[in-house]
Parts: sequence; structure tokens; C-alpha cells
Amino acid sequence: MKAIKFKNKRLFYLDQTLLPLKEEWKECLTLASAVKAVKTLKVRGAPLIGVFSAYALYVTLKDKPEKDKTVFLKTFEKTAEILNSTRPTAVNLSWALSRIREKVYARADRPVAVIKQTILREARFIEKEDEQLCFRIAEKGLALIDGQDRILTHCNAGFLATAGNGTALAVIYAAAEKYKNIRVYADETRPLLQGARLTCWELMKNRVPVTLICDNMAAVLMAEGKVDKVIVGADRIAANGDAANKIGTYSLAVNAAYHKIPFYVAAPFSTFDLSLVSGKNIPIEERDPEEIKKIMGRSEISPRRVKVYNPAFDVTPYKLISAIITDKGVIKPPFKKNIKKILKK
Amino acid sequence: MKAIKFKNKRLFYLDQTLLPLKEEWKECLTLASAVKAVKTLKVRGAPLIGVFSAYALYVTLKDKPEKDKTVFLKTFEKTAEILNSTRPTAVNLSWALSRIREKVYARADRPVAVIKQTILREARFIEKEDEQLCFRIAEKGLALIDGQDRILTHCNAGFLATAGNGTALAVIYAAAEKYKNIRVYADETRPLLQGARLTCWELMKNRVPVTLICDNMAAVLMAEGKVDKVIVGADRIAANGDAANKIGTYSLAVNAAYHKIPFYVAAPFSTFDLSLVSGKNIPIEERDPEEIKKIMGRSEISPRRVKVYNPAFDVTPYKLISAIITDKGVIKPPFKKNIKKILKK
Repeated sequence: MKAIKFKNKRLFYLDQTLLPLKEEWKECLTLASAVKAVKTLKVRGAPLIGVFSAYALYVTLKDKPEKDKTVFLKTFEKTAEILNSTRPTAVNLSWALSRIREKVYARADRPVAVIKQTILREARFIEKEDEQLCFRIAEKGLALIDGQDRILTHCNAGFLATAGNGTALAVIYAAAEKYKNIRVYADETRPLLQGARLTCWELMKNRVPVTLICDNMAAVLMAEGKVDKVIVGADRIAANGDAANKIGTYSLAVNAAYHKIPFYVAAPFSTFDLSLVSGKNIPIEERDPEEIKKIMGRSEISPRRVKVYNPAFDVTPYKLISAIITDKGVIKPPFKKNIKKILKK
Repeated sequence: MKAIKFKNKRLFYLDQTLLPLKEEWKECLTLASAVKAVKTLKVRGAPLIGVFSAYALYVTLKDKPEKDKTVFLKTFEKTAEILNSTRPTAVNLSWALSRIREKVYARADRPVAVIKQTILREARFIEKEDEQLCFRIAEKGLALIDGQDRILTHCNAGFLATAGNGTALAVIYAAAEKYKNIRVYADETRPLLQGARLTCWELMKNRVPVTLICDNMAAVLMAEGKVDKVIVGADRIAANGDAANKIGTYSLAVNAAYHKIPFYVAAPFSTFDLSLVSGKNIPIEERDPEEIKKIMGRSEISPRRVKVYNPAFDVTPYKLISAIITDKGVIKPPFKKNIKKILKK
């Protein structure tokens, strides 16, 4: 299962806004289409938008004239900048693009044709690496799971959010493979319903038992003793362990703490932003009110002129996090010290 | 503003499932249509379904033959039973119907025509009384509100939920009338979106500034210091103060406690069920999975065969409630003692 494909120098993506009703692959042909795909969440998930934008950078530049290197590099810069500005919260996007930038400037003395190949090679490398990161997250996270666990997750941090089989869901897939009785609760994740549309879809495809709930039902499940663990992904994690993730994660973390249920964040090293001391400085994307006022861009559910607040992410303070599951190991508190230590590995 | 109307012995209701897109009045002509209106939430809100069912009882019985009293009383019993079984959680429904039953049996020696008038008179009385209860709840609750308050509410406990101007929203209307700067946040209230569809609609009609959010955003607003108070309605309150209300209320209460924000429940005396020691015995209605899987019965948002958990209500334990605003006064902890004391008044 894959959410994007790069084949014969062409970039394809599964349009996630159409799931679960339609499985439709589309080709990313231009910079504008790449930008639109990311901005409108046809391609989404912190690690995946990093990988996708890396390939989009190549696709956009591959046919540019090769004669004038200065012009090419200027175009490269501008294109990367535009791709980088599509979504502000997930750090994987700028991380992937800076990585390519570094490689490009390390070969700035070579011909443009070679630089183009450098971009492609790095994009491929980022993709393969992300696949591996998912695998390692699963491996490390598995140690935290018991055979009878009923695990609650929010939004989608699976196949559809990464180049591999996910972060939070990678752990769940590994657990479900090892143990018979793993059960999952998926928050629907308003406003864009990634839980209902995407997480349920991919868990069902992979035959992992899942029950869909509205976000506001999670607390009741916890009170009823039906949730053993919460595992979510992340879009950016600060040096102190504060983790930005899909809106609703924070409410879930508060409830998990109240009910004394372990709350885990699963993310690869590329999601950490050690330049930020705390989560206070993570930019939080505020999105179009229409996302709340209309469901799936169609059904109106509120008065036309009502005022709306629509932050797309929230920050869960490190105090509410039991552990962060990374490709390099499970990080436990004290996070500030242990993040530094483990990420250095 | 009214959500039901009784005129010339005919019962009309505003179909709340069509709001805010259409304001359509319908007539309740038969028992079947009354049952359907309540079950499908065309008429909803704990106090309102009590009032509506009282009138529906009259409308259903008014043309029944008057010759044989035994037959009439049997029909009365059966009709009341059917109306009473439409929705299990709100106690106001059975409260209203038992009240009529009591009056009917107090006049059981009179002719059927008189008994019919008794039913009508009691239905009218319950309606008028509920209007007054809303007014008194507002009056008592106003003492808890400051002039600059930003109040968060869940579901709809306003004009559309009572015969008057609401319970939680009655307090807000009174506050907005007295103070210029009252601001309201309305949880959209998944799955049936009573907050987005109904609360926003009626607050806007009454020119009270309201901002719509998804349920999972409330915690963020609290963390950002944007919520001064939470006020919600209730469907049934046990003797110890545990309060059943629309699903999502409990999560909100946990979050309010965590952020040290006062959490108020507003309800008339008819919502208390002192026969229940605690909220554990309140029956919680579980509704059709389709309510979650399709928005407004139309837009599909999840895989067709996904398993769903859809409790329509939850119980907030008394420990998370700062005070209960009733028509007889504001009840503060210790609830068990003070509920008994104040309700006796």
C-alpha cells in the first residue's frame, strides 16, 4: 500500500480527499498542481508531504533549460520556497527541502544535468529512508504494547501519511501482526475527518479491527475502561518534547492524563525541530472556515455567516506525553535531556 | 421565538433537522408522526420533548370515542407508554407524561370529555411552567456571570430545546442583555451537529456574538485562556449531582477541570431524577451508526462497513461540576445535600 508513486520520472498520488469513497490516482505535472495537492490535503501527513515535495521539486525542474546554471539555481530556490510555504506546521517538509538544497549546493560546481540527478537521488533517498523509519518506529514501539491492547488513535498516521506504513499506525500494524487481540478506536478527527475517512479505510484494508467514534466520545471510552493506550503521530516536536499534531490531540492528551492512560507520540527523527525550545514557537496553521461549515466541501451544517475558529493543529505539552516512539528508540521523560541523547545516536 | 406551537387544538413543530438551512413548520397529526418527530430529533431538547409529548398525547387522543371510559383509559395508557419510550435518557419526557397520568387518574370518575380537557390543561400548564422555569434559571444563573465573559457551550440548550428561551442559553441570553461584551463559543456537537446547526442559528438570530468550533478545539481555546466559563444543559441529573447530557459534555468537563475553568450545568427541577443515587444508573441511548457514518444523512464520510460506537449522551460526574443552575437557585457542592435542600423549596 502506497500513497504516492514515482515511476518513469513521473509522480503520482492517491487523492486522499476522495477516500474512502473513491481510490483515484492523479499525476503531479506542475508546481501549481503540487502546491494545490498539498494545500488541499490531497497529499497529507507530515512525513509524506516531505517526500512528495522532494519529488515534486524534481518533477517541476526536470525539464528546465540546462544552459544557464545561475538561472536554474534561481528557479530551484524559488520552487523550493514555494513548495516549502504550502503548509507551515509539519517540519518534515522544510527538513526534506533543506536536505535537497544542501546536496544541490554541495554539487553547485557540476553541470545542471547533474544537479537535476542530485535532486532526484536525494528525493528517492528521502523516500526510502522514510520507509525504513516507519519500520524502525514499529519495531521500537512494539515493546510498549500488550497483546490485549485496545488502542485509540487520532487523525491518520499510517500508510497514507508516510512513505512507509506510518508512525502511530506502524506500531499498531506491528502489534496486530504479533498479537491476535489488538483492537483500535479511531477518532473521526473533525473537521477534515482523516480518522473516519483514512485511518478506518487503511486499517480495514489491512484487516485490523477498528471502531469509529466521534472525537468527543474518546473520554467516555476512557471512563468506561475501554482504552488501554493512546498513540498519535506528530507534525513537529520541540526540544522539550512538546508535540504539535492534528487538532484534537491536546484534548485527547488531557483526557488520557485524567484517566491515567499512557499517551504515546510516534514520529521519526525528521519530525523533531530542536531549534525550538518549546512548542510555543511552533507555527499553527489556521485553515479556511468552510472546512468546518461544510462537510467535505458539500453539506452545509451551520448558518452561512457564522464566525469560525479553525486551527488545524494543537500542541500537546510534554508533561502529558508518556513517551515518544522514534526510529532511534523510545524516548521517556525527562524529554529535554533524553531527546538530545537519543537523537544523537 | 418558539420551537413548537399549539393553536386551535393543533400541534405544530419547527423541524429542527432542517435547520439552519430551512425553517419549516410541520403539523403533528398522529401518534406515529409524534414518535417519529422525537426519535429523529425533529423535536429535541430534554424539556421540549416533555412539552411536545404532552401535547402529542392530547392531539392523539382528542378524537377518540368517548363512550367507553375503560377503552379510552387503555388507549391513554398505551399512547403515553409509546410516547415515553421514544427516547430513554432525558427524564423530562417521563416526568411530563407521569404528571398528566396523575391528573387523569385524579379525574377518573369524570366523563371522557372532561378527561381529555384535563390532558390538554396539564399540557398547557407544563408548557407555561417550562417557559417560567427558563426565565428563573436565567435569573439565578446571571449571578455567576461577569460582564466580559467568554462562555463555551455544547449542543443546544436554548429556545429550540425548551418551551422558553432555554437553560444554558437562557443564562447566556440574560447575560448578553445585561452586558455588552458577552461572547459565546459553540461546540459543533458531533454527530448531529446541534451546536453548529441550532445554537449558532438561534444565537445569531438573537444577535449574541458566537464563534463556531469543532468539539475537539475546546481544549485549545481553554489553554489559550479564551474561555472563562462553560455552561451546558442536562438531560437527567441524579441525586448526587452526576449529570447526563449530550455526548461530548464529559470530555469538556474533564478539560474545564484541567484548565481550572468553572463548569456549570443549567437545568430545571424537572430534569432531576432523585430516584437515582448516581449517574451510573442513567440509561444512555445508543443511536444508529449511520449518524456518524453519514453527515446529515447524506455525505458518507467513512468506509461503508466500518464498526461504529455511537452513544448519544454521557454522564459528567458531580466532581467535575462547579455548580448546577436551577429555577430554584444555584446549587453548589456538596451536591447530594444541597440538591435535596434546594429542590424542596
